Amino acid sequence: MYKIGIDLGGTNIAAGIVTEKGEILYKKSIPTSADRPQKDILNDIIILCELLCMEHGIDWNEISSIGIAVPGGVDVEEGKIMFTPNIPFSGLMISEALSHKLHGKSVNVINDANAATLAEVSAGAAKGASNAVMITIGTGIGGGIVINGKIYTGVNGLAGEIGHMKVEEGGFHCGCGRYGCFETVASASALVHMTEQEIHICKNSGEHTIMADEKVINARTVFTAHKLHDAAAKRVLERYTDDLANGIASLINIFQPEVFVIGGGVSGQGQYLIDMLQPKVDRAVYGGYVDKKTKLCTALCGNDAGIIGAAFA
Amino acid sequence: MYKIGIDLGGTNIAAGIVTEKGEILYKKSIPTSADRPQKDILNDIIILCELLCMEHGIDWNEISSIGIAVPGGVDVEEGKIMFTPNIPFSGLMISEALSHKLHGKSVNVINDANAATLAEVSAGAAKGASNAVMITIGTGIGGGIVINGKIYTGVNGLAGEIGHMKVEEGGFHCGCGRYGCFETVASASALVHMTEQEIHICKNSGEHTIMADEKVINARTVFTAHKLHDAAAKRVLERYTDDLANGIASLINIFQPEVFVIGGGVSGQGQYLIDMLQPKVDRAVYGGYVDKKTKLCTALCGNDAGIIGAAFA
Repeated sequence: MYKIGIDLGGTNIAAGIVTEKGEILYKKSIPTSADRPQKDILNDIIILCELLCMEHGIDWNEISSIGIAVPGGVDVEEGKIMFTPNIPFSGLMISEALSHKLHGKSVNVINDANAATLAEVSAGAAKGASNAVMITIGTGIGGGIVINGKIYTGVNGLAGEIGHMKVEEGGFHCGCGRYGCFETVASASALVHMTEQEIHICKNSGEHTIMADEKVINARTVFTAHKLHDAAAKRVLERYTDDLANGIASLINIFQPEVFVIGGGVSGQGQYLIDMLQPKVDRAVYGGYVDKKTKLCTALCGNDAGIIGAAFA
Repeated sequence: MYKIGIDLGGTNIAAGIVTEKGEILYKKSIPTSADRPQKDILNDIIILCELLCMEHGIDWNEISSIGIAVPGGVDVEEGKIMFTPNIPFSGLMISEALSHKLHGKSVNVINDANAATLAEVSAGAAKGASNAVMITIGTGIGGGIVINGKIYTGVNGLAGEIGHMKVEEGGFHCGCGRYGCFETVASASALVHMTEQEIHICKNSGEHTIMADEKVINARTVFTAHKLHDAAAKRVLERYTDDLANGIASLINIFQPEVFVIGGGVSGQGQYLIDMLQPKVDRAVYGGYVDKKTKLCTALCGNDAGIIGAAFA
């Protein structure tokens, strides 16, 4: 039997046929065009699933279940999207709406950060772990918590908003309304902001940094320069990894998970990033006397995490 | 059937006979005298349990199990105390050591903050909740996490060190070695420190505060003065509840538990404290659109929490 995983994003809808082991057999992607009416987007999701099966020659009898990952708050039990800021699906009973048109198959809904976490536990960096925590570093910081092999969603489906742990008195204003949230210092946006700031300082002081030669500054800029021993890049990453390691250490102090996974674009730096973080995390984690320590690593499922995690929802 | 719960503290050892419903039928307490050899303290624990049964006229056949709460890191599965700073029990296989001399009954070990949490879930403020988080506000801040009705201990027994979540860049030095941990701003010690500081400022500026009349400053001082509309006390509690509420909100963002319980001495302020915290927590918690919200309350088991929680370990 196979599963279908759908990764509903603000830009694209990606879907794939997933094996019981978490391998994607076949996948397809279409633009979300999120400014369209709800009905049209739903219709495209249904067509996408039909196409997957048809083009890969799989009969619907071979599909055990379907899952959909959504960027927003979901009620897993009711199969409802409570709130999604960028797609006109807030309040939609999506499981019911899709199941009806997808041969009566059961459709599960999951938050996208939780899906990424479930993907890593099912088929990625935390495979087999019964307790794991994952942060997804992007525009903000998303989080997923796995306890006893299951995504922990709390009383209302919203657990895991790790990006909104306050780490600074005062600090930058956060999209959530507070100041000094973890994501204001450790998201990819925060890293880009730090990079731009450092380039600006170098320009003013006449210090040379190869980062200033880049036309587009993104989260990779500083890593590329760091690998070329750029002093300014070193300062930026020193500060960024301090903040990131501090947040990770706080979360390890709270959860002591088997595995702590870093996902999102920045995690593409893999062991290079872990090597910078590990000693800082080790120094800050409570309980130096224990043998069993949390394994810190980067995600393995990459862009497929949404599809795989949705399939296992 | 009954259980015996033992609350092993640095100052006293308290033990009680506990019903299945979490009521204490009979309890006794002796000094720990923690500077004695391990053997002597163990012996006193055994005598204490024997006395409980004898004096209350309960036969050992009526005791189903024994639990012991310890201030430190424990390995629940091995029945081992990994580390306890103030009692000479680090490394002790305590379940084995006690079971042997207590009629072969099974002896479970639990961390004291986890015991307090289990007490509140079994018989106190979070009774019946399947997911709950508790902080115990004392010299430091202890924490306990209940997921699916069970204490969550992580990969090594140390999960729940909520006091060592970093909430401030820089900040005060913490006993764990880091700076700016939650307990450096929101523990009872931090509150006493803030109170003393404010009294000092008042003295220097000539402002009258009734707190300055107190011979001994403790965590209650500022609450008593606040109830008498003392302006300096108002400033202290405004700042303290800001910091406490911010930490609680971060934890609610992470866990979204059914119930969030505040324990320890400060929790004796009950609804008076909750009324100050609730609006600040509400403003800071993520996801204003959900109906199901975490219930914030103070602990009910008081000084008996260790005994009750140990019994249910």
